[in-house]
Amino acid sequence: MMKVYCAIDLGGTKMNIGIMTKNGEVLEHIKIPTFVEKGPKQAIKRMKNTIYELLEKLGLKEESLKGIGIGSPGPLDSEKGIIIKSANLKGWENVEIVKSLAEDFENIPIKLENDGNAAALGEYLFGFGKGSKNFVYITVSTGVGGGAIIDGKLQKGGNSNAFEVGHTIISLNGPKCNCGNYGCLEAYASGTAIGRIAREKLSEGRESLISKIAGEDCVKAEHVFEAAKEGDALAIEIVENEGYYLGIGIYNIIALYNPEKISIGGGVSNGLELFYDKMIETINSMSLKPNIEICNIKKAHRDDCGLVGAGALVFYK
Amino acid sequence: MMKVYCAIDLGGTKMNIGIMTKNGEVLEHIKIPTFVEKGPKQAIKRMKNTIYELLEKLGLKEESLKGIGIGSPGPLDSEKGIIIKSANLKGWENVEIVKSLAEDFENIPIKLENDGNAAALGEYLFGFGKGSKNFVYITVSTGVGGGAIIDGKLQKGGNSNAFEVGHTIISLNGPKCNCGNYGCLEAYASGTAIGRIAREKLSEGRESLISKIAGEDCVKAEHVFEAAKEGDALAIEIVENEGYYLGIGIYNIIALYNPEKISIGGGVSNGLELFYDKMIETINSMSLKPNIEICNIKKAHRDDCGLVGAGALVFYK
Repeated sequence: MMKVYCAIDLGGTKMNIGIMTKNGEVLEHIKIPTFVEKGPKQAIKRMKNTIYELLEKLGLKEESLKGIGIGSPGPLDSEKGIIIKSANLKGWENVEIVKSLAEDFENIPIKLENDGNAAALGEYLFGFGKGSKNFVYITVSTGVGGGAIIDGKLQKGGNSNAFEVGHTIISLNGPKCNCGNYGCLEAYASGTAIGRIAREKLSEGRESLISKIAGEDCVKAEHVFEAAKEGDALAIEIVENEGYYLGIGIYNIIALYNPEKISIGGGVSNGLELFYDKMIETINSMSLKPNIEICNIKKAHRDDCGLVGAGALVFYK
Repeated sequence: MMKVYCAIDLGGTKMNIGIMTKNGEVLEHIKIPTFVEKGPKQAIKRMKNTIYELLEKLGLKEESLKGIGIGSPGPLDSEKGIIIKSANLKGWENVEIVKSLAEDFENIPIKLENDGNAAALGEYLFGFGKGSKNFVYITVSTGVGGGAIIDGKLQKGGNSNAFEVGHTIISLNGPKCNCGNYGCLEAYASGTAIGRIAREKLSEGRESLISKIAGEDCVKAEHVFEAAKEGDALAIEIVENEGYYLGIGIYNIIALYNPEKISIGGGVSNGLELFYDKMIETINSMSLKPNIEICNIKKAHRDDCGLVGAGALVFYK
């Protein structure tokens, strides 16, 4: 009998649900909307249905399913299997997601973990992190998050809320972050921040291709990247600043974690080649030489590390 | 036969050398000057002599000595047992300290570790950290340093240079730090920073007891603390700022490490009651509630955690 694992990457807009092997191979997966506003009960019901649908599609019996792993926005309580509450899952509070799934899927392990931690585990086991002992995964998209592997083990922290790198302060009295604090890395280096900075500069009357590319749309990071590729001066300036800000955040992480490998994932990493040099220059100019010499920084190898990492929670010790 | 361990806390001005048991009891210890300028060879020779002297004083034979642990300023290579170079050990480069000690003390384990990491281990095993699984030690004196225990294990990093918390950036374009970067936590919250800020304020013509207390001396953190205790307005302002800056640094650490306990040691922690409230207020106002609820922050219980932690390197797995 084939042994498979169910992986659930729960997000504020969609859930990615997959069936995978122990080797990180995703046999089948489906993305469905989360419909946060309809509440957790309804979402968990569709989650269950999707698992049955996937097993059927693969011609697998329920006995083949050896566990379910869920990566979810935090803060959460992984021991108790509860999503406490989250800015990305508005209105959901103290959701006993593990207990709810266990009603249908009895006698198999069901694990809940912070989504950043799960993604770090996925990229560590099946992506660029492979073979290292101290590894950091940073995702840069709407927000900035991630997770860390320390001496071969996933860093969870006291209640699975470790590695909230996006909300570390890199500048006292910096711009306001979504979390309410000022000067968080996320307020400087996220996709959201790139869009905000571009709109600010454009509203100051700076000439740029960015407005043309965005058209009627609200200016976003992807428009800035496209303009930068065409040589637009303002876009290049914003993209260089992204390299600088993210470089500062990564410098801090190297000073604290002293890792051998760092992966950068998330939507903004699609523009990594535009700001990689500036980012590395920033890091190298500030870091201890021995720390830099052992540290390799690359774009994440697995786009789906959040998914495969969630599934790996079940069998990873 | 009694089993004992030698602990060496190597610093830029003095070395503290002790003989201890596995329970963290220091049977005897001696502090001698390092005399950095005379070079490592001479220092290691006096280190060896002091170990013999301590054993003799305790009436112990060399066979009782089951290992030697050294905490040293980094960067270093703990695998190879080499101090690479350090701002606090000027002129020392690629010092093979483990090999040199092994010439006299054969067939016993000799371990080298970053001093902040060693101190964290000491406070974890024998101080306030006891019983926790995720613990952080922060020392605030001339500089700011420390170490972390993650899920019961000392975080070393890829080459034992992890947890350089003093050199994480908390403010872009902040004051220049000794390390050459700008806006490090150390440039805001160390004893050195308190002295510098006080001298700046006084040179602006601010009235204060601080100058009277310092007299002919260069104004230092201890003078500021004394003036604050007497109700001096400027001193209280500086001390409150210390609470705020250190609070920011600790907020960042909680966001990343999500620990159950944090100890604050080092000379500046002697004034902790003066800025504890402001520090906690800063941390609480910024942190995720579940992270704060599980986290307990106290003054370090062991003044000598750097010493006992160094010794513990030998037997701690």
